[in-house]
Amino acid sequence: MTPHPTERTVFVVSDSTGITAETFSHSVLSQFDQARFKSIRVPFIDSAEKADEVVARINRCALEEQHAPLVFSTLVNPAVALRVRHANCTFLDLFGTFIKPVEEALGLKSNHSIGRSHSVGLSKQYNNRIEAINFSLAHDDGQFIHGLEQADVILIGVSRCGKTPTSLYLAMQYAIKAANFPLIPEDFERRALPTTLVPYRNKLFGLSIQPVRLSEVRNERRPNSDYASLKQCRYEVAEAERLMRMENIPWLSTTTRSIEEISTKVLEEVGLNRQAY
Amino acid sequence: MTPHPTERTVFVVSDSTGITAETFSHSVLSQFDQARFKSIRVPFIDSAEKADEVVARINRCALEEQHAPLVFSTLVNPAVALRVRHANCTFLDLFGTFIKPVEEALGLKSNHSIGRSHSVGLSKQYNNRIEAINFSLAHDDGQFIHGLEQADVILIGVSRCGKTPTSLYLAMQYAIKAANFPLIPEDFERRALPTTLVPYRNKLFGLSIQPVRLSEVRNERRPNSDYASLKQCRYEVAEAERLMRMENIPWLSTTTRSIEEISTKVLEEVGLNRQAY
Repeated sequence: MTPHPTERTVFVVSDSTGITAETFSHSVLSQFDQARFKSIRVPFIDSAEKADEVVARINRCALEEQHAPLVFSTLVNPAVALRVRHANCTFLDLFGTFIKPVEEALGLKSNHSIGRSHSVGLSKQYNNRIEAINFSLAHDDGQFIHGLEQADVILIGVSRCGKTPTSLYLAMQYAIKAANFPLIPEDFERRALPTTLVPYRNKLFGLSIQPVRLSEVRNERRPNSDYASLKQCRYEVAEAERLMRMENIPWLSTTTRSIEEISTKVLEEVGLNRQAY
Repeated sequence: MTPHPTERTVFVVSDSTGITAETFSHSVLSQFDQARFKSIRVPFIDSAEKADEVVARINRCALEEQHAPLVFSTLVNPAVALRVRHANCTFLDLFGTFIKPVEEALGLKSNHSIGRSHSVGLSKQYNNRIEAINFSLAHDDGQFIHGLEQADVILIGVSRCGKTPTSLYLAMQYAIKAANFPLIPEDFERRALPTTLVPYRNKLFGLSIQPVRLSEVRNERRPNSDYASLKQCRYEVAEAERLMRMENIPWLSTTTRSIEEISTKVLEEVGLNRQAY
């Protein structure tokens, strides 16, 4: 541990939302444990005037902190990018770096048009996405049985194991109609899948979780309840896993995984090759 | 229009989920209108053996299609990346390209550790995110009034203008507690905000939409209803916008914007500087 870690300001500059650039910057910066970063996203920089404002802001920051900030840019317009490049910074040009080799590989010229990736507006894709979100909301926690035949996947597992966030992420990012259905003590006594789900066996995917973690999560909701007790969590998780094994349903543990990782595993296992938005 | 557009296969190879790389590849490829792309995401490539399988797959594809595929890589491990680089492809090394200039700027060595960006596991951040999703779900469509004082933002607008997807996106990506509340004909007759919302004026942000588009969206839900009629949509939108103007509530139109764009605008206007996951 150094007593004074390296602290740097990071600008994420984009002519669109900058969300992609920001997420990318996190994955690069996460490689530098020793440093601390303060990230500032500057979206919708689509003119020379706005570029000049950003330049002034970067230069001010460099002066104040006595360090040139890092700038991750996905500016598409070469003239706008050039202005920002000349600020007092380490300029990381995500867009410009890769557009040329892609042009060469394709033998085509790029359009240099702004904000195309998220500007899906009224397109079919966009409607599919909204429809999937509505579907997943309506089919959260087994609340609505009608229409399950339209589901792309049905997540099952004990209460609070991560089904809802995963369903919503799959819908939001991949326009996947992801329903989810709880496995409850009643099912464990019967040692059988909820009868509602039997016709959709091939759409089922299980999520499980370590009992200690589950108990923590449930205790936040209902402190000191039987429901949240380690004993109850151990029982439910053991029974749910036994049931999924018996019924040959693919499943994974959510305990140390992010929503993105769980969703990616589900897509792989279920064999859905969808493209992210 | 060319009769036979350039068609290419694109591999997105990552030792983690590859979601960031995939989204980035979309934003680069969206610059090539003339071409069509088939994108294959290959996540969790974290060993030499898995790298060699990917190389074989890329080479097979190159042979079949008589074109070297494009490969977007966020492989962190240099040895694994090197193997894939040697496949018959145009190798676009997102990670390797930027790690060096960042090392130089910081005067630090990177950890070269895999899958750090999404492996948030049990961290505080991760819990905040889940908590925000639960909050936004519980406070969707004004269904639950208790706890609104904890909201970071409360989206208002007529039914089906895009409040729910935006709330969920803000929660999912930014751990923002985003409630949403409908503006309904009753409010328009009274020409006043729903009384529930009055104490939270400074958290309100309005969404609006073009009446023609709103009518389309509502018609999908309730075909040929009064609710979906263009006349009703025109009335509600005009009244909602008048109310928001009168009450000095910032608002924007969702009509031609993606969920990402709307969310980014909301963050800017509300002055929340949160970092994406």
